[in-house]
Amino acid sequence: MTAVRKPARTVAKNRPDATKRAPPAGRNRRGGKASRAAAGDDTKITALKLRPAKLTPDMAAYFKLCEEKLGFVPNVLKAFAFDMAKLEAFVAYRNDLMQGESGLTKLEREMIATAVSAQNQCYYCLTAHGASVRYLSGDPVLGELMVMNYRAARLDQRQRAMLDFAVKLTVEPWMVEEADRARLRRLGFSDRDIWDIAAVAAFYNMTNRLTSATDMRPNSQYHAQARSPRAHID
Amino acid sequence: MTAVRKPARTVAKNRPDATKRAPPAGRNRRGGKASRAAAGDDTKITALKLRPAKLTPDMAAYFKLCEEKLGFVPNVLKAFAFDMAKLEAFVAYRNDLMQGESGLTKLEREMIATAVSAQNQCYYCLTAHGASVRYLSGDPVLGELMVMNYRAARLDQRQRAMLDFAVKLTVEPWMVEEADRARLRRLGFSDRDIWDIAAVAAFYNMTNRLTSATDMRPNSQYHAQARSPRAHID
Amino acid sequence: MTAVRKPARTVAKNRPDATKRAPPAGRNRRGGKASRAAAGDDTKITALKLRPAKLTPDMAAYFKLCEEKLGFVPNVLKAFAFDMAKLEAFVAYRNDLMQGESGLTKLEREMIATAVSAQNQCYYCLTAHGASVRYLSGDPVLGELMVMNYRAARLDQRQRAMLDFAVKLTVEPWMVEEADRARLRRLGFSDRDIWDIAAVAAFYNMTNRLTSATDMRPNSQYHAQARSPRAHID
Amino acid sequence: MTAVRKPARTVAKNRPDATKRAPPAGRNRRGGKASRAAAGDDTKITALKLRPAKLTPDMAAYFKLCEEKLGFVPNVLKAFAFDMAKLEAFVAYRNDLMQGESGLTKLEREMIATAVSAQNQCYYCLTAHGASVRYLSGDPVLGELMVMNYRAARLDQRQRAMLDFAVKLTVEPWMVEEADRARLRRLGFSDRDIWDIAAVAAFYNMTNRLTSATDMRPNSQYHAQARSPRAHID
Amino acid sequence: MTAVRKPARTVAKNRPDATKRAPPAGRNRRGGKASRAAAGDDTKITALKLRPAKLTPDMAAYFKLCEEKLGFVPNVLKAFAFDMAKLEAFVAYRNDLMQGESGLTKLEREMIATAVSAQNQCYYCLTAHGASVRYLSGDPVLGELMVMNYRAARLDQRQRAMLDFAVKLTVEPWMVEEADRARLRRLGFSDRDIWDIAAVAAFYNMTNRLTSATDMRPNSQYHAQARSPRAHID
Amino acid sequence: MTAVRKPARTVAKNRPDATKRAPPAGRNRRGGKASRAAAGDDTKITALKLRPAKLTPDMAAYFKLCEEKLGFVPNVLKAFAFDMAKLEAFVAYRNDLMQGESGLTKLEREMIATAVSAQNQCYYCLTAHGASVRYLSGDPVLGELMVMNYRAARLDQRQRAMLDFAVKLTVEPWMVEEADRARLRRLGFSDRDIWDIAAVAAFYNMTNRLTSATDMRPNSQYHAQARSPRAHID
Repeated sequence: MTAVRKPARTVAKNRPDATKRAPPAGRNRRGGKASRAAAGDDTKITALKLRPAKLTPDMAAYFKLCEEKLGFVPNVLKAFAFDMAKLEAFVAYRNDLMQGESGLTKLEREMIATAVSAQNQCYYCLTAHGASVRYLSGDPVLGELMVMNYRAARLDQRQRAMLDFAVKLTVEPWMVEEADRARLRRLGFSDRDIWDIAAVAAFYNMTNRLTSATDMRPNSQYHAQARSPRAHID
Repeated sequence: MTAVRKPARTVAKNRPDATKRAPPAGRNRRGGKASRAAAGDDTKITALKLRPAKLTPDMAAYFKLCEEKLGFVPNVLKAFAFDMAKLEAFVAYRNDLMQGESGLTKLEREMIATAVSAQNQCYYCLTAHGASVRYLSGDPVLGELMVMNYRAARLDQRQRAMLDFAVKLTVEPWMVEEADRARLRRLGFSDRDIWDIAAVAAFYNMTNRLTSATDMRPNSQYHAQARSPRAHID
Repeated sequence: MTAVRKPARTVAKNRPDATKRAPPAGRNRRGGKASRAAAGDDTKITALKLRPAKLTPDMAAYFKLCEEKLGFVPNVLKAFAFDMAKLEAFVAYRNDLMQGESGLTKLEREMIATAVSAQNQCYYCLTAHGASVRYLSGDPVLGELMVMNYRAARLDQRQRAMLDFAVKLTVEPWMVEEADRARLRRLGFSDRDIWDIAAVAAFYNMTNRLTSATDMRPNSQYHAQARSPRAHID
Repeated sequence: MTAVRKPARTVAKNRPDATKRAPPAGRNRRGGKASRAAAGDDTKITALKLRPAKLTPDMAAYFKLCEEKLGFVPNVLKAFAFDMAKLEAFVAYRNDLMQGESGLTKLEREMIATAVSAQNQCYYCLTAHGASVRYLSGDPVLGELMVMNYRAARLDQRQRAMLDFAVKLTVEPWMVEEADRARLRRLGFSDRDIWDIAAVAAFYNMTNRLTSATDMRPNSQYHAQARSPRAHID
Repeated sequence: MTAVRKPARTVAKNRPDATKRAPPAGRNRRGGKASRAAAGDDTKITALKLRPAKLTPDMAAYFKLCEEKLGFVPNVLKAFAFDMAKLEAFVAYRNDLMQGESGLTKLEREMIATAVSAQNQCYYCLTAHGASVRYLSGDPVLGELMVMNYRAARLDQRQRAMLDFAVKLTVEPWMVEEADRARLRRLGFSDRDIWDIAAVAAFYNMTNRLTSATDMRPNSQYHAQARSPRAHID
Repeated sequence: MTAVRKPARTVAKNRPDATKRAPPAGRNRRGGKASRAAAGDDTKITALKLRPAKLTPDMAAYFKLCEEKLGFVPNVLKAFAFDMAKLEAFVAYRNDLMQGESGLTKLEREMIATAVSAQNQCYYCLTAHGASVRYLSGDPVLGELMVMNYRAARLDQRQRAMLDFAVKLTVEPWMVEEADRARLRRLGFSDRDIWDIAAVAAFYNMTNRLTSATDMRPNSQYHAQARSPRAHID
């Protein structure tokens, strides 16, 4: 299943710093006083009892890759793993969207994901994608801004319009009209870029709701990731 | 790609009545006064100019099946057809969700899709899924109720709770908590059913936004479909 | 009571097609599987038990006219018929507004009625006025658009502004100011036209609430009315 | 036109104190510094230029009665006076609703009118109906509470539920269901009372929007009316 | 404590008319039928049972000054008097803000206080600050407009923009950006004026919530204050 | 000025870890690639140009204490420093509220501050108080939960009710009533505790708006503070 495997590799090489940071963070947690708030994060990924299915070879390989490169398998994948057809479809859709070719950088896609998730107050997605923004930008403050209020970030006009479109589409999709698309075009976005902005914003409106509906808990490793400023990656 | 082909066949046998009704409706339209409101439906599927890619054999077969069985290829598929990876991922995800095994009937999944789309005032999805509810239930009024205000429908407690959950998840996902899941369980939904309710509601929160962002126009054939009461199908 | 009788006649000649379509629809319903969603529509018009009063001669004549020309007496009239003063006052106000002289066409007034009712998710009014838009325009799609999201309709600037004003007045009446009226004037609306737009929007904000408060059920005949494209009437 | 004349008489005897207070208030205004905020109240009733029509004898008599008993003709009547059919229909509907027989006292109907108008932030209706609440209750504070936040008033359970229903119907009519009606019935309201609560709430949702749309200005005499505590009237 | 004493003096000379009006109003209340709505205003200031602390000499002097000049101690001060540190801090902050040097007049600050309180439907603050607007402006109608809908007041562009900023900051603070500040600057506000507009709007967002949380009751004397037009004071 | 000095000392001993972390974080920032998002944080604290006044001896001592103990003077203090009366009043009010005696722990007060700020999407306050929650709890995840969606935190019933009250008071203060207070009492909160919950929630509704209105930027040191789990402090 090429479509899935290729993005998987992209994810794989994506997070050298996650790989390094995760273990000590893990050790600290277990060694110190258990956090009340995070209690249960590791043992219970969602509020639903769904028996894990046997991983297909493709998915087993993908999970292994995640372990090696991220230090963990993102909980959203484990949550889908009760049904291989669902897991494969989700991974294929998600990886094409976030890792595939696009006029938007990966960082920009993660910025959209995070700003959308903030509107929906989604704990899982804010945690995971806030970490991605910090990691890809090398700018921890940018991650916080996407979580807290993207309007407070000092963005150029183009990125600001991109997020305004994504957030309007999240909050009042029925109000999006030609004038909104025209503004994006004036700032240099192609019609394909507009599709991609919409598709990413739309996708996280989906995952925000799936994770909220199931009380999905993010892997605790995300919290400490990429908290120091560093070089820009994307 | 089995995952895609199988659901496609399910769709195929799904709409005998659509197949029969569509052509006369088409003739009427062209023969009579062109509708101002619908003008452009046939020639421009979205507001974005995206060049169609060459269909993969799988997708070509799927489109052909749609033509044969529905009398048309749903515009959302044509809209995705600028990129085969995106189209295949969308079809796989969508067909597993809406046609795959579930404790929810297909009609129930379409009811969720429509009630969610009503919250988001999504013209495309209300048109397509309102038609599906009419078709699968054999009850044209039920389709209208899902579009207009699902709370006015005379549903049993179980279906009402299912839609309340889906709509709350749509409107204020951050407020969904254990009490909401507990209510569904008390009414007989399994944890897997809860996943499915959430997954369908979440998915249409995605497509509502993708179609609104791109001003996607529904195939005009939907409007006249299944407007007379008939036997229940699902 | 001239004011009432005259509009009554206008209604009367208004719906030849309703007259013809209603009986078969009625037969189908009774002959086939009873629709669960619509069950009770015919036997219980509202959730309130209010004993019908004896119709005054004026009102008896008006109901008879409705039967002859529409094939039924609209349920809202039956709902008011527990008190003749209330019924007469409602009919007089409503008919002057919707059938009397105005710079707005009857179709435009029905478009406003439907778009307003969509904001208030009013099942009764969406059903009845959506049917009127389909009938008067000869364009079934236009009726659907008013119900689903008027912003998706391809309207000229003038009609769009008319609906924007009506919807803003519905959703946040406290925000309507001189700039809103000025925009209507620039697009050719007279001050009298502005009154009429406001009066129609305001009236359906009233009826939407009266029907929602009482769970008023629309006559089932509306659903099938004017579902095929035909010549424009208004 | 009996229906109109009778309520008119009811209004007439209704406001001895208004009659007495209005003239000095008027004198003060003219004698002192012109109020900036109120400027134009007397010379321009709405933002629309609509030439007054010749009053019908019924309406002329009704206006005369208002002058004699209230000391002024309410501006909403003057605003409708460009068209006698509209004026008569409005007066008939309004007077039946607010002055006719009902299980609700006149004060209770005015409380609903004011609490509804507060949700819609309607300057005209809050001014006129706040004055009515003060006058009919003899309790100036009750008028202020209806304007500012009816939830802060120390009402009995029955009146509180009445206002809760009216306000829910105003703010989210699509959410009103059998449970809401059942609560009213449990507190002693008959089905007819429920109709009246709904009808009054619905009507002021209409007038709030008509006056907001036209920037209608209340007669300045209302402001000083019934500002001292006195005996209860209704 | 100079900071507190000086504003106290400013308050003191501020309300000659309050001083005169309050006693008769008090007498009327006690002599006549007890107002149901206002019942308990005098005996129970908030819903919380908090034992009054011994007033510090500064606060005792300040309360005495209020009695002499206003005819009463505002209930918000009594509510804070369970803890002298809290009372002194509140008085110091409040008096500096509302009585201290500013490019905004005292009337303008009270207009902001009232318009903000209207958004939050705060009974206590609308009562107290609506009275202040009436008193300081000598225009009873202006007070009502700030309570009911400030947009209906005929304000100059500068004061309108000031209130628009304060209300936006109240309703959607996260949307306030440089463009909002730029608009104020264009209309002549200095950066210090912008701070003051924001600080007053922000402060009443605090007090609105503290009084709502505790069901704080305004002194009944406010209601009758400054109901007749008179000279402008501020 | 004892009231100010004492809380200042409390702050002082409060943040040993901040003191240690801040300097390296500062060095990293300056040594590495400048963060685009954070650019200007250090040079421009707000969007308003307000000339700093000369610090009074009390305030100079307080700023010095902050430097020594926190490693920096919180920007909100520098923002107020254009006027010593305002700065002193703010510090007195704030320190009494957050550092003074209370039935709520300091951590609980910071949890309220953060959950309130999340509703208002306030970048400054989320940054500063999210850091405080992390620091005082020793649980970095708890800080993130308060920022992202406090409902996802695994809190006991008492703390959950405390935050529910604070957030309701933030979002719809006009709806807070006796039932809300009664729920807090049932869970063990005293009337004084209820005052404190309300006062903290109200205060951050003030500061959220003051910082949003002025685009106040948090000290960049907050972002990296207390990101590792450690012992509980409060």
